[in-house]
Amino acid sequence: MSNDKKFVESITSRDQDFAQWYTDVVREAKLCDYSSVKGCLNYLPNGYAIWENIQSNLDKRFKETGVENVYLPVLIPESLLQKESDHIEGFAPEVAWVTHGGLEKLEERFCVRPTSETLFCDHWQKTVKSYRDLPKVWNQWNSVLRWEKTTRPFLRSREFLWQEGHTLHATPEEAKERTQLMLDIYYDFVTKDLAIPLIKGRKTESEKFAGAEATYTIEAMMHDGKALQSGTSHYFGNGFPDSFDIKYLDKNNQLHSAYETSWGLSTRIIGAIIMVHGDDSGLVLPPRIAPTQTMIIPIAQHKEGVLEKANELLEQLKNIGIRVKLDSTDKTPGYKFSEQEMLGIPTRIEIGPKDIEKNQVVVARRDTGEKITISLNEIDKKLPEILEDIQQSMYKKAESFLNSHIKSAITMEEMIEKFNNERCFIKAMWCGSEECEDKIKSETGGAGSRCIPFNEEKLSDKCICCGKEAKHMVIWGKSY
Amino acid sequence: MSNDKKFVESITSRDQDFAQWYTDVVREAKLCDYSSVKGCLNYLPNGYAIWENIQSNLDKRFKETGVENVYLPVLIPESLLQKESDHIEGFAPEVAWVTHGGLEKLEERFCVRPTSETLFCDHWQKTVKSYRDLPKVWNQWNSVLRWEKTTRPFLRSREFLWQEGHTLHATPEEAKERTQLMLDIYYDFVTKDLAIPLIKGRKTESEKFAGAEATYTIEAMMHDGKALQSGTSHYFGNGFPDSFDIKYLDKNNQLHSAYETSWGLSTRIIGAIIMVHGDDSGLVLPPRIAPTQTMIIPIAQHKEGVLEKANELLEQLKNIGIRVKLDSTDKTPGYKFSEQEMLGIPTRIEIGPKDIEKNQVVVARRDTGEKITISLNEIDKKLPEILEDIQQSMYKKAESFLNSHIKSAITMEEMIEKFNNERCFIKAMWCGSEECEDKIKSETGGAGSRCIPFNEEKLSDKCICCGKEAKHMVIWGKSY
Repeated sequence: MSNDKKFVESITSRDQDFAQWYTDVVREAKLCDYSSVKGCLNYLPNGYAIWENIQSNLDKRFKETGVENVYLPVLIPESLLQKESDHIEGFAPEVAWVTHGGLEKLEERFCVRPTSETLFCDHWQKTVKSYRDLPKVWNQWNSVLRWEKTTRPFLRSREFLWQEGHTLHATPEEAKERTQLMLDIYYDFVTKDLAIPLIKGRKTESEKFAGAEATYTIEAMMHDGKALQSGTSHYFGNGFPDSFDIKYLDKNNQLHSAYETSWGLSTRIIGAIIMVHGDDSGLVLPPRIAPTQTMIIPIAQHKEGVLEKANELLEQLKNIGIRVKLDSTDKTPGYKFSEQEMLGIPTRIEIGPKDIEKNQVVVARRDTGEKITISLNEIDKKLPEILEDIQQSMYKKAESFLNSHIKSAITMEEMIEKFNNERCFIKAMWCGSEECEDKIKSETGGAGSRCIPFNEEKLSDKCICCGKEAKHMVIWGKSY
Repeated sequence: MSNDKKFVESITSRDQDFAQWYTDVVREAKLCDYSSVKGCLNYLPNGYAIWENIQSNLDKRFKETGVENVYLPVLIPESLLQKESDHIEGFAPEVAWVTHGGLEKLEERFCVRPTSETLFCDHWQKTVKSYRDLPKVWNQWNSVLRWEKTTRPFLRSREFLWQEGHTLHATPEEAKERTQLMLDIYYDFVTKDLAIPLIKGRKTESEKFAGAEATYTIEAMMHDGKALQSGTSHYFGNGFPDSFDIKYLDKNNQLHSAYETSWGLSTRIIGAIIMVHGDDSGLVLPPRIAPTQTMIIPIAQHKEGVLEKANELLEQLKNIGIRVKLDSTDKTPGYKFSEQEMLGIPTRIEIGPKDIEKNQVVVARRDTGEKITISLNEIDKKLPEILEDIQQSMYKKAESFLNSHIKSAITMEEMIEKFNNERCFIKAMWCGSEECEDKIKSETGGAGSRCIPFNEEKLSDKCICCGKEAKHMVIWGKSY
């Protein structure tokens, strides 16, 4: 059994060194690694398969609300990026520039897209003429490049995968409604399919997207108490469209401004799955998103009939729509158990000669370690129930962790003390000034405003920092 | 009815000016347009939805043979691109170079990937150590950039979408088998799902991929008699892996070379769908790939009960898995008919007060124009049958076109005359020399070797060009 131990011992304990634990899990579960392009990742089969399931589940939700997918170019001309002033200011320091095409120097530089608002607006400027052309409700699944200085797998890399939705509407009301709808879709997807509880809210002025009028966010709490911004939805008003001279004629032939939104969710969310659910044995994947939901591991597989029965079960479970695999390699069962646990596969089924004799199997849950003996006559009914129970339990566990790690503070001393001693978010009142935001961040060692939650409370009348009249309750936290 | 005419008249007749007809269809069906990035396309909803169906149908076939999806970076360091000499020679003149990241000049240039062999090899060099690590059977869906001088929608653009599969094997036999398997998958997909008949074969030395030992291809014939290379599968031998120093230890601890393949199919294939099946009313989409398979068009929709019944039918057909839409806009039915035809939607269902009275609908086939009256009691059974019949008929029609446009030639005079007077491929014998290939191309006004088909015939003993001993029968043709 030396093999098993070796496998498990290769990762650091989660509570001993969370950052190292994270790196170890990413490596041992073979989710991604660094390529020869500094700061850019190779998304390997185990990691990319999670992304494919995210894409598929989210895309389905998008399309149910009328979203159409498109693909716009990977390059953006410098002049186009410059059309909206806040936008270029926000992105210019972190884009990569193409200066040569083939053997020739280009007349104008192109950047590799850091985001595509400018390309969508440019297209709409040429094609949207009348109210009949609206709304446009478009999305693309692509990669973007931002020249980050420090990087971490999934959490921050120079190139990352995401979807960016861009929509154009005849009225502010319709655009605002779409902004909220997409935030709701993210919330629904992340809570239900990824089993990650969230706080929904609005970003403060200083934290909103370059060029947006309002940015809404879903914020998750990792096991170390830090926040991970898990998806954002932006309302642009007519700022971008006006900068690009997008106007449409209404039914009465009057010229109007158009109103825009954009919204995105990226491969960062895989980092959240790891850091919310993972444990000392590795990854723990929610069944709805797990590329493999069940791994069948035969016991004493050399004995007559074992592999045959295991294969029979494999086909049987495939037929009822379970994403199932059979590990019939020559590794020891113990090693296979460790490997299945490291990969976060929600359940494993052990099947050996004695089980076959009794017409049963043993199902082990990845989340709790519980082992359940189930008759082969009932497996088709019971296994989906167990998977659903795992999904719900994982959410409840994470939800109770989040709820018990949100604290309140009325004074700066209280806030600083809590951030020093606990892994937590802190609810506190705020006057609305950027100065106080900055001061809180520096005095707490980096806890910024995560969002003004939709369900604000009134903890006091005064800003926790300057003591002036409070405008909002803010959720503060350190973050990835 | 003036609206309908206007819509249809907006495209050129196919037999009058094929190139203009193509451009008109792409524009009027809103498949794609040129972006502000010279030579790069915006893939618009109608075009991208076709690509999504191609991806989904092809990806399913890939995964059934054990392919795993990954994603590797969009940038390639110059030093990496240079590791395989034929490869850099082939691609250097047509890549775009990133020279600045953020505000700084880079120490080493990166190109935006024109293809990713070098990145896959670089990763495998670091991670493949033993026979246990093989095979690697990987694929990625992405975009690549090649700095083309002249471009045409879908057929040739600076950036295009594709999948690139890359695999690594312990033996040449296994790699060769994978090369053929992927070619067979392309053949199966293009013939069955896209209803496009094909010629399978091997490329000549001068036409093979930069760095490959052998390139296999599927070639389709467009309505103007020109060829479109529709997918390629390459066997690399150990050339690339050796250049990258990829070696593995076998069971006896002996060090070995590894063997590689790559294979790709791109958005060019959308050009083939247009040019094989389209007609003077616009696009004609094969049902298996059509984003919308049926458009319900209500007649006299203001009359009581019509829209209700149309909506009922919409839900009913959705429930049996038909991709169906209802056009209840205020355009005239005639205009809607023209639009549905332009978009290539395989069937439309006309439903009006008289139909409802008789409990029937009229189904019109896009491919033949035939109108079929069907009882509403039978629509669930009949409509899928009609769609399947359209799929088969489209293939048979295209197959008979291809077969009747492949000619043979024994002398150069005969070949030149045929290429001058007919739209066709020509089968002719060839000695194997690049000189004769070049000469044939220049004397026929551009007909190159498309492939040495798998089912070679012996038309004569001599090369059609130099008269020396013939080695192969080649399919010659002008091409996109």
